Amino acid sequence: MIFTETLLDFFLATRKHTESLCAPLQTEDYVVQPIEDVSPPKWHLGHTTWFFEEFILKPYAPSYRVFHQDFSFVFNSYYEAVGRRVVRAERGNLSRPSVQLVYEYREYVTKAIKALFENRQGAPELQSLLEIGIHHEKQHQELLLTDIKYILGNNPLLPSYSDRTDEHQAEDQAPGWIRMDEGIYAIGHDADSFCYDNERQRHKVYLNSFEVSSRLVTNGEYLEFMQNDGYKRFEHWHAEGWDWVQRQQVNAPLYWYLIEGEWHHYTLHGLELVSPDAPLAHLSYYEAFAYAQWKGCRLPTEFEWEAAQEHFPWGKRWEWTESAYLPYPGYTRAEGALGEYNGKFMVNQKVLRGGSVATPTHHTRPTYRNFFHPHLRWQYTGLRLAR
Amino acid sequence: MIFTETLLDFFLATRKHTESLCAPLQTEDYVVQPIEDVSPPKWHLGHTTWFFEEFILKPYAPSYRVFHQDFSFVFNSYYEAVGRRVVRAERGNLSRPSVQLVYEYREYVTKAIKALFENRQGAPELQSLLEIGIHHEKQHQELLLTDIKYILGNNPLLPSYSDRTDEHQAEDQAPGWIRMDEGIYAIGHDADSFCYDNERQRHKVYLNSFEVSSRLVTNGEYLEFMQNDGYKRFEHWHAEGWDWVQRQQVNAPLYWYLIEGEWHHYTLHGLELVSPDAPLAHLSYYEAFAYAQWKGCRLPTEFEWEAAQEHFPWGKRWEWTESAYLPYPGYTRAEGALGEYNGKFMVNQKVLRGGSVATPTHHTRPTYRNFFHPHLRWQYTGLRLAR
Amino acid sequence: MIFTETLLDFFLATRKHTESLCAPLQTEDYVVQPIEDVSPPKWHLGHTTWFFEEFILKPYAPSYRVFHQDFSFVFNSYYEAVGRRVVRAERGNLSRPSVQLVYEYREYVTKAIKALFENRQGAPELQSLLEIGIHHEKQHQELLLTDIKYILGNNPLLPSYSDRTDEHQAEDQAPGWIRMDEGIYAIGHDADSFCYDNERQRHKVYLNSFEVSSRLVTNGEYLEFMQNDGYKRFEHWHAEGWDWVQRQQVNAPLYWYLIEGEWHHYTLHGLELVSPDAPLAHLSYYEAFAYAQWKGCRLPTEFEWEAAQEHFPWGKRWEWTESAYLPYPGYTRAEGALGEYNGKFMVNQKVLRGGSVATPTHHTRPTYRNFFHPHLRWQYTGLRLAR
Amino acid sequence: MIFTETLLDFFLATRKHTESLCAPLQTEDYVVQPIEDVSPPKWHLGHTTWFFEEFILKPYAPSYRVFHQDFSFVFNSYYEAVGRRVVRAERGNLSRPSVQLVYEYREYVTKAIKALFENRQGAPELQSLLEIGIHHEKQHQELLLTDIKYILGNNPLLPSYSDRTDEHQAEDQAPGWIRMDEGIYAIGHDADSFCYDNERQRHKVYLNSFEVSSRLVTNGEYLEFMQNDGYKRFEHWHAEGWDWVQRQQVNAPLYWYLIEGEWHHYTLHGLELVSPDAPLAHLSYYEAFAYAQWKGCRLPTEFEWEAAQEHFPWGKRWEWTESAYLPYPGYTRAEGALGEYNGKFMVNQKVLRGGSVATPTHHTRPTYRNFFHPHLRWQYTGLRLAR
Repeated sequence: MIFTETLLDFFLATRKHTESLCAPLQTEDYVVQPIEDVSPPKWHLGHTTWFFEEFILKPYAPSYRVFHQDFSFVFNSYYEAVGRRVVRAERGNLSRPSVQLVYEYREYVTKAIKALFENRQGAPELQSLLEIGIHHEKQHQELLLTDIKYILGNNPLLPSYSDRTDEHQAEDQAPGWIRMDEGIYAIGHDADSFCYDNERQRHKVYLNSFEVSSRLVTNGEYLEFMQNDGYKRFEHWHAEGWDWVQRQQVNAPLYWYLIEGEWHHYTLHGLELVSPDAPLAHLSYYEAFAYAQWKGCRLPTEFEWEAAQEHFPWGKRWEWTESAYLPYPGYTRAEGALGEYNGKFMVNQKVLRGGSVATPTHHTRPTYRNFFHPHLRWQYTGLRLAR
Repeated sequence: MIFTETLLDFFLATRKHTESLCAPLQTEDYVVQPIEDVSPPKWHLGHTTWFFEEFILKPYAPSYRVFHQDFSFVFNSYYEAVGRRVVRAERGNLSRPSVQLVYEYREYVTKAIKALFENRQGAPELQSLLEIGIHHEKQHQELLLTDIKYILGNNPLLPSYSDRTDEHQAEDQAPGWIRMDEGIYAIGHDADSFCYDNERQRHKVYLNSFEVSSRLVTNGEYLEFMQNDGYKRFEHWHAEGWDWVQRQQVNAPLYWYLIEGEWHHYTLHGLELVSPDAPLAHLSYYEAFAYAQWKGCRLPTEFEWEAAQEHFPWGKRWEWTESAYLPYPGYTRAEGALGEYNGKFMVNQKVLRGGSVATPTHHTRPTYRNFFHPHLRWQYTGLRLAR
Repeated sequence: MIFTETLLDFFLATRKHTESLCAPLQTEDYVVQPIEDVSPPKWHLGHTTWFFEEFILKPYAPSYRVFHQDFSFVFNSYYEAVGRRVVRAERGNLSRPSVQLVYEYREYVTKAIKALFENRQGAPELQSLLEIGIHHEKQHQELLLTDIKYILGNNPLLPSYSDRTDEHQAEDQAPGWIRMDEGIYAIGHDADSFCYDNERQRHKVYLNSFEVSSRLVTNGEYLEFMQNDGYKRFEHWHAEGWDWVQRQQVNAPLYWYLIEGEWHHYTLHGLELVSPDAPLAHLSYYEAFAYAQWKGCRLPTEFEWEAAQEHFPWGKRWEWTESAYLPYPGYTRAEGALGEYNGKFMVNQKVLRGGSVATPTHHTRPTYRNFFHPHLRWQYTGLRLAR
Repeated sequence: MIFTETLLDFFLATRKHTESLCAPLQTEDYVVQPIEDVSPPKWHLGHTTWFFEEFILKPYAPSYRVFHQDFSFVFNSYYEAVGRRVVRAERGNLSRPSVQLVYEYREYVTKAIKALFENRQGAPELQSLLEIGIHHEKQHQELLLTDIKYILGNNPLLPSYSDRTDEHQAEDQAPGWIRMDEGIYAIGHDADSFCYDNERQRHKVYLNSFEVSSRLVTNGEYLEFMQNDGYKRFEHWHAEGWDWVQRQQVNAPLYWYLIEGEWHHYTLHGLELVSPDAPLAHLSYYEAFAYAQWKGCRLPTEFEWEAAQEHFPWGKRWEWTESAYLPYPGYTRAEGALGEYNGKFMVNQKVLRGGSVATPTHHTRPTYRNFFHPHLRWQYTGLRLAR
């Protein structure tokens, strides 16, 4: 456990970083929700704040008065235990509370947390809740950036977000295969440091020998698949994936546009030529699978990935794995509303491993398990081959 | 035809009035689109401006340079002849162009129109186009206000728009029936003044004798229908209306809430008690029909309404009529894109007559024909009985 | 009023004719429902029988015992007053009651009606109910034939129904325009003979002078519209019609197939070449309107049609009119469940006049008003131009 | 490999058994498709026949003439490699080919297969194809029975199928827990006998120690969950499961009806009282999971199930497992159309183990992997607890 003082610094730095991510936005950008999976930035700002109010200030700060009685309703996400909430698909229909008021809410709660933790040098339970809240906000930082990218990238004017330069950098790594031996591997988190409940219960897994690529698949490699009629030949695809391709008329990764014969993609700088050497991003699981099938390979399982990961310079893309998102042996949900954090999503989702250019520093670790539905691709999702 | 100077003044006053309607808004309120029928205020500001740019400045102002090449795409509404456009349901997904930029666009176009009409004292054709553009903007003023009401009234915080006080005023008129004789009546516009193509071709209509109420139906009268299980007895309803009630679980007019046993409604001031004497508003055609059926009466046709209207103090509500929106004998569409203005909507819509508290001054006239799909109720729609 | 004996003969002949229409079917053809608007033939057989059981035998035949307690639930169509019913879209999901049992039901009810009317030489009220029941069954004969056509014509094997030969016969009439003078015309039914409530209340209508074509539009004339990019040019269409064309990818009338460069259509004989001289059929109102618009003409209103009809050799097609389906002045619904027959459909539908090859003998008359939603085209719907 | 003579007998017996399952049906029962997942019995009869025609007779019987040129289109299910097909949801809209013709098709193909295998005493490749075809038909026998149950059980008349008596028999097994030790287990098929590609590649899996119930959960046990507000408390459910319960208004297993305070269910005999001691059936995975969660237990994984199965008297219910349907290490698809058999469904489905009262004799084995989407429950799906 980190000492309280450090934890409070960590909290304050995290709060500040969230706001710095929004600095380049115009007020209007905070409001819209072009698809249900993407939340308005304003909502992220409020929701991460509500989390501290609801789970720490309300129960533990006796003199705390809630900032606004309706914000619990507006900024609750999916915590059924905590009461009614704005349906997810309706978040983009709300012009109020204003961005200004949400920032005031943030400041109000940040100050109250600061006061609480300065006064009360920390029951471990409270510290643990604060730590969860910080990590919760870090998760939302990642979503915030990818949601901003979607909001701007979905706009016909294709505006630039900022001059960040590390979004589509090639890997240094030479291509090659890492060979892993058959045997028993330990999977899951066992250190003293923070992790989510879905990573816990380090346990043994038996793996057959396998090989995994030392590098992520690049844009150039994926272009070969496209030029090879990859999106037109059903035999590479799952039945559901093929359906998705047909119905959505998908013929390239998200944000890709063919302009006068050359593939461009929308980036945080605006529209740019696709760089063949950069790692591929914005792929659905269906596309990742089809590409691997076409190459005569497959995706690694999350266990293979975790066993081999020390050989990767990972961290640029979330990588789709073959594994469904399921509980580890011995998994148990927390009691109460926080028990809804992970367990209730363990069906029909695929595990992603790694971490992307949108992931905040120190928020990834080898045991971290992200998860999304197979058709989603607004995260920086890529892939690595196994065989 | 009005002299150019006056027309230009009319233009400038109209532009200004649109902006004054938006004065109470916060930036965020300009952006959202809670249902497809409601457009973001920002879009209304841009679209009414684009109309002048597209139909007057581009063809008639030789040195005019368009403000932004993509705005034609962003702010076109339904003019298929003019090219691609943002699909209506997607208007609320666009954070850019910013509100600030849209206001700059307005100013730029207003100035260019001013310059054009000051220099060129007016070919009749140009004057006629300007007049259409002004009336087009006036129509949007009405939508702007009802859309703003929906945006705020759909927000769980139910914010107030302003302190306007004329939204739910009782009529002075005593209740009673106006008797009209059987015979031939002339219907439609024939004066020299402005009207839309759908009002033209004054023609004869044979009417049987009928009676029409001197007053609009009030909230209190409608409450009796509600208390009489009006929403639970299929025999008052059209089959489609009954379906709509069941599927949408409708049990009161739009914006009405039963709070601790008393009916409130959202108004431009915020939540208020329903006043029994004020004219009813925010009703679908289905509800208007069911109420009339329950009273053993019916709705007037648009011809009956027009024949009898000189006896009404109308102007507080748009009134649903029994008439379907169809062309008058001899109706012809204009050539080109402006021909899309009215004719192509003449199917599956009901005619409304009158004008509401949202209607700008001088924008209604006895021959004016408004039209909406029968399930819509975000306009200030009410009803008057006939028999 | 017809004497009871004749009425009973009329009843028996009608019952028999319904069954003769089904004679060419295989058992399986009685069961399916390829789209919601098309009912399984088995259902028509049962529903027309239930009508007599529900409205005559139950209330007026004291010793009558219902054939099967659940048939009221299974064969009720839309009479909300009579209780629960199988949802329309679910009719094709029911394999039971078997076709055999439905025929036994028919015989049982036919005999009971016969017995009732032989014994009781006729209170006028009972006779009137029987007459309505007969006309109700005749209406269903028309639907039965068009539903059978859809069921077989939707099957990839395109089986033939029978060797009837009068489905696509050319009109004798020479093309030309019938000129009608301006003035007051009487519209509606006033004779002593049977008609529906929606035809009653003969009343005056003022018509401007107009011309109406002496002939229905032919396949060959419509092919010119198609060859002229009629389905690709939005300016001919209502906005809703254009939407419908785009979404459903419509490019020809229903049942038309382009095979090796030649237009064929499915007929009751199976697939055949389209004959250019035969009157066009299986058109939506949207298509009828677009064709007329392209020709620089329009559709007649139902009043124009009725005023001019004595000059037509009508009876081969149902003809789309420009008129919306609305009550005549003075229209009142019958009391009770039979009041649901017509009035509750008077919104969002278009009036058709005439009668088609599927219409039973003596079931059409100049005042008959049929009505369908504008997108439907599985009836033998055609058009006649006016200007 | 079984000798040809025996294999041919096996083939003939399988064909006959399929037909005997249909013996109690009326012609109409063969035709309908009340939900997309349920196919018309007629289609099963045709599709299993087409499989032999397409994959054996066409390529290997030189003088074979196809029975009907359009049947490949009508009876193909999902084999994209083989060409166009009737969309799954449209199967119930086809009245033709008639049941009679489908039986003729069966006989024609059965005879042709017989002739082929009598003449040609068996290249191993041909034998292997025949074996797959037989197992394919056995799989469809299971679906045929559950589809028939759905067709009849969805009918408001709730007709009985037959007097089979083994559908809801209690297990002899005493309740209790089977304890399994931690360690490496071998999973998958390695014998010489028939299995599907998805069972192959016997491989090692590391399991933690666990306990699994010796018995299936019974109706009576599940009733306790229901009486404990199991369907009303979100904390037992996956988020998707809770959504499903809300949207579909689920409050009991499929086919259960509360009649005058007592739970009945539709069985192949018709409506019966629910027997508390019989194993539960017709549950979705969501419900199985929620029940286990409520009991403080979980579902076994498919590996745990396979490791422990020799201690179960299994075979009465398909049992939901916690495992997602994924390829075993080293899994490869077959070449060509048969490669579509299993692999392309390996996403978003849950593995079921065991076998049900609908499963044909000798069609289950300890390594057999069935799979369905988590919301489906028209199979005889039940559950067994683990912890």
